[in-house]
Amino acid sequence: MNDAKESVWETIRGIRPVNADWTARARQRQRSLTKPPGSLGRLEEVAERMCAIQERLEPQVARRRIVVFAADHGVTVEGVSAYPSEVTAQMVVNFVRGGAAVNALAGVANADVWVVDVGVAAPVSVGSGRARLVQRRVRNGTRNMAQGPAMSEPEMLAAVAAGIEQAEQAAEDGVALLGLGEMGIGNTTAASALTAALTGLPPSRVTGRGTGVSDDGLARKIAAVERALATNAPRSDDPLDVLQKVGGLEIAGLCGLCLGGARRGRALICDGFIATAGAALAAGLCGAVADYLFAAHRSPEPGHAVLLDRIGQRPLLDLEMRLGEGTGAALAMNVIGAAVAAFTEMATFESAAVTDAPGPSEGRPDPGRK
Amino acid sequence: MNDAKESVWETIRGIRPVNADWTARARQRQRSLTKPPGSLGRLEEVAERMCAIQERLEPQVARRRIVVFAADHGVTVEGVSAYPSEVTAQMVVNFVRGGAAVNALAGVANADVWVVDVGVAAPVSVGSGRARLVQRRVRNGTRNMAQGPAMSEPEMLAAVAAGIEQAEQAAEDGVALLGLGEMGIGNTTAASALTAALTGLPPSRVTGRGTGVSDDGLARKIAAVERALATNAPRSDDPLDVLQKVGGLEIAGLCGLCLGGARRGRALICDGFIATAGAALAAGLCGAVADYLFAAHRSPEPGHAVLLDRIGQRPLLDLEMRLGEGTGAALAMNVIGAAVAAFTEMATFESAAVTDAPGPSEGRPDPGRK
Repeated sequence: MNDAKESVWETIRGIRPVNADWTARARQRQRSLTKPPGSLGRLEEVAERMCAIQERLEPQVARRRIVVFAADHGVTVEGVSAYPSEVTAQMVVNFVRGGAAVNALAGVANADVWVVDVGVAAPVSVGSGRARLVQRRVRNGTRNMAQGPAMSEPEMLAAVAAGIEQAEQAAEDGVALLGLGEMGIGNTTAASALTAALTGLPPSRVTGRGTGVSDDGLARKIAAVERALATNAPRSDDPLDVLQKVGGLEIAGLCGLCLGGARRGRALICDGFIATAGAALAAGLCGAVADYLFAAHRSPEPGHAVLLDRIGQRPLLDLEMRLGEGTGAALAMNVIGAAVAAFTEMATFESAAVTDAPGPSEGRPDPGRK
Repeated sequence: MNDAKESVWETIRGIRPVNADWTARARQRQRSLTKPPGSLGRLEEVAERMCAIQERLEPQVARRRIVVFAADHGVTVEGVSAYPSEVTAQMVVNFVRGGAAVNALAGVANADVWVVDVGVAAPVSVGSGRARLVQRRVRNGTRNMAQGPAMSEPEMLAAVAAGIEQAEQAAEDGVALLGLGEMGIGNTTAASALTAALTGLPPSRVTGRGTGVSDDGLARKIAAVERALATNAPRSDDPLDVLQKVGGLEIAGLCGLCLGGARRGRALICDGFIATAGAALAAGLCGAVADYLFAAHRSPEPGHAVLLDRIGQRPLLDLEMRLGEGTGAALAMNVIGAAVAAFTEMATFESAAVTDAPGPSEGRPDPGRK
């Protein structure tokens, strides 16, 4: 287990901020393309950041992968979810066989799907199919955080290391866009507890209906988060302490994926509330992680907007999705791919012999840059 | 020219509202898929509407086309644009050669691009290339609407008929998703005049900076719209009268594309402010056109939100794009394709042996349906 701790800290020490020189160079090229300056809106900032991440003006975005970390949550015994825990293992099988929403949306995005069992409670008896299945189970789900720490420190570190391993594997495979996916009945409760612990906001402010609990279920959920915080007293300035006490094994895996992905210079595509919790922990451990993060979408979960604000990223999409699995990340990959295609494939005013407008220096304001 | 008038009215008479029975059947199937009800957010409503448009539970979305109508505007002599009129013809060549933003984004969306010269002022000396070029020039740009009607009635009808012809061609080619594109220096001025005429709102409220005019340019633009309305007194309850007097030839083409596309049961993917002006005219002529319209995105042009409200459609994307050409439509095609992929490819709770949650009838509220 000391190996895991060393691996995590070595990864964190290896993360570098992106080089702003490349952003400036990309912006200069952007200005030469046959369109009014700023008229592609947020697609322009996306393309510029991809250039900065990869330190080139022809960013590669062809190889894409969504890594779905799956785990169970002891806190489900408190009646916090509309679905029973057994659904986690059933959905892992569904992912592998290609029948889940993330499979369909990843297909549209030309992304492959890897599923990592980092802590499912029930047996998962299926080999790799349409999605690759990786077995890295640390334990059969977390303990009930309303009664004590969700994990031991070595368990938490092992799950984070499993995420780092996935980032390394993706980098070896040439993956440019790395999507954050997750499955775990009860995990919006863990993400709410993490958000409250990290921000100091009251649980009632950052806890929502998840997959769709009733009013009674929501009240039980808020109460469980309150008890988890009171029982464990996580240290808000120590992301790994928060993760261990009130997190989840799949969230630890996502945190590791972000740390490893940032170290290997990969674009990290966030998903919903739970994925963003993993990303926020990673950014809490090393601020430069945020340079590599793209927020895919904004879910209706009240804690999600809080975390997006914390990682300093505006979502690309706002389609009221609240499924997780990496479905929002898959959709956002299309937007990022389109942004880069426009940036790399468009003609310049000069090459296409199109008359440019006088620039801002000649008296015209440029409303495209705010 | 009487032929054009008859073609337009025959098309309008042939448009039918979509069948709500298919929406209900699609919603029922949606409920059986392995995800919490409503958790795919707006993707669910998109898939359900595609089922209603095509009257089938396996909507086809593979064949996609963006039709870019190009034309010039006499009103540019009033100094309303940051770019000179010659750019319209230059950009038509750029589209055909594949160097514009719409080419790159259409490539990502697997859509082909057709360019229809319905009224460019300068010669366009290029054959079909990466995009198909269709020559249907009605006249070399509109007249200056600040001094009289932009077009004669026969000219307006000929341009609308050219749009209907494109819809017929697309239907013959098996196109399922039909994107609205446009190019025309000065056309945000025409779209602003149309919006003011249709809604009665003051020109200053619905006129923006377009491709990026200065403060002085914006003042000239608002003044030009005010004079166009005062000089021509378009009848707000007669969309074709408004179109003829203060519209544009490319906007007439877009209006025709929407009429013809609705009659042939094709999904119509709006784009920015100008495309939505064409769609709003079509919906003004026949309310059922709106059943076939999808709003792709919201541009920062102040008139765009007004028109989106008028056609009753919420945009799928909000990326601060303001380029036109069909670029927003191309991006939205990916979202629609993803919505349909999830709907048609996902397993059901029964087929995947995943445990469903108790439904709303058993006491659980369904927050996914608002």
